[in-house]
Amino acid sequence: MANWVRVLHEGKPTYGQVEDGQIRLCTGSPFEQFAPLGVSINLADARWLPVVEPRQFLGLWNNFHETRAAGNLFMPKTPLYFAKLASSLTAHRTEIQPPPGYTSKIKFEAELGIVIGKPCFQVSLEDVDNYILGYTCVNDVSAVETLFEEPGFTHWIRAKSFPTFGPVGPVIVTDIEPDNLRVKAVVNGVEKQNYPVNDMIFRPREIVSIISQDVRLLPGDVISCGTSSGADVMVDGDTIDIVIDGIGTLTNYFRT
Amino acid sequence: MANWVRVLHEGKPTYGQVEDGQIRLCTGSPFEQFAPLGVSINLADARWLPVVEPRQFLGLWNNFHETRAAGNLFMPKTPLYFAKLASSLTAHRTEIQPPPGYTSKIKFEAELGIVIGKPCFQVSLEDVDNYILGYTCVNDVSAVETLFEEPGFTHWIRAKSFPTFGPVGPVIVTDIEPDNLRVKAVVNGVEKQNYPVNDMIFRPREIVSIISQDVRLLPGDVISCGTSSGADVMVDGDTIDIVIDGIGTLTNYFRT
Repeated sequence: MANWVRVLHEGKPTYGQVEDGQIRLCTGSPFEQFAPLGVSINLADARWLPVVEPRQFLGLWNNFHETRAAGNLFMPKTPLYFAKLASSLTAHRTEIQPPPGYTSKIKFEAELGIVIGKPCFQVSLEDVDNYILGYTCVNDVSAVETLFEEPGFTHWIRAKSFPTFGPVGPVIVTDIEPDNLRVKAVVNGVEKQNYPVNDMIFRPREIVSIISQDVRLLPGDVISCGTSSGADVMVDGDTIDIVIDGIGTLTNYFRT
Repeated sequence: MANWVRVLHEGKPTYGQVEDGQIRLCTGSPFEQFAPLGVSINLADARWLPVVEPRQFLGLWNNFHETRAAGNLFMPKTPLYFAKLASSLTAHRTEIQPPPGYTSKIKFEAELGIVIGKPCFQVSLEDVDNYILGYTCVNDVSAVETLFEEPGFTHWIRAKSFPTFGPVGPVIVTDIEPDNLRVKAVVNGVEKQNYPVNDMIFRPREIVSIISQDVRLLPGDVISCGTSSGADVMVDGDTIDIVIDGIGTLTNYFRT
């Protein structure tokens, strides 16, 4: 098991592994060759970056039995996904901020993120672990009123991709069993979401295998597995933690 | 006016400018610094690459008065966009091919592509030309049956992003007036689409300005402006040209 993080070191994005409360910095990345840099920094001193910069950042909708039943939604035939744009990415401990002039509601959504490790196309369920690097925390921040502002078209990309609407990280954990995890959102210290991965309609390995049947996945791609009940509107000053025991805590601050 | 192309030269992606039937190769790219490499190649010898590798590749739906009227569609309040994934990109003179085992209908869609030159956020209509590098040809290849396979969700991303479904190029033309252009699709020498940009509900400059109000656009991003009437199903062996007089011709071959 490795705990990958990505920080700014001497002005450059640098991967490292967390061991004994220290980040042991590396050259390269977990997606290619890497080697110890021979430098360690304290976790408390980390200048966090998004743990990965995906070329393809997908998110799922309607992927939980609980929310499907509660919302009287249809049973999807296959994972239902949209994309979050690259320019929405943000790191652990940064502010989530609506664009100047935007005053409508914005929600947090606690999600498990799958990080792809190797190019992946038409991969069987049995082989899929060979293509997944690990798992991370995602806050799939969503402008819910923009999402539904047009009756004839759902603004999936737009409403999920304002700048700072894509917090990812701070850790990618490898060699962990995803189906046993629980995903939580904690706002100002109060738990708002707490749901099991095993309530997913499509579990993480199935998601990757099915999506790869017709779309090519690339190293560093992130697939966020959708959220379950409890996602809610943020207000100015909120601190939002996405907590997945066994992976870590992704913290961001909502500021209007 | 410059005519940017991107080719493989000595194993590396290399930008160049077309002048007098020759490609004058450059170091760098039109998105940053560039300088003459002092090497020219014949157009006929070019090993074409996608003219840009966008981090964000957006496509519009329902952006023409003609197709809106013909389809009895609603008038959009704002550009309606989806994303094409990075792994769908392909170059001029390559094959468009459905994934192994996929036998449903696949359409060509001739479109004008806007190429963003500089980071761009909340840009006014008056300023927007300062952020647009130029214009190119896009074939927004679409798996139309996959798009609509789920009644409760439109698979915009998935149905537009199979490998080879994103032909872009071969030329980016700068300093051209987009509103006067016509966009054509020619299949096996027969014209199938021929529509004017000035029938767009949102014209190119408006598209960029409006999208930039809440999403940050990045250098190299491509926004494909949507298609009008005549887009049709391809059959094995078809040669599809996307022709925009004043920009160029993007040619691809459909093979099942």
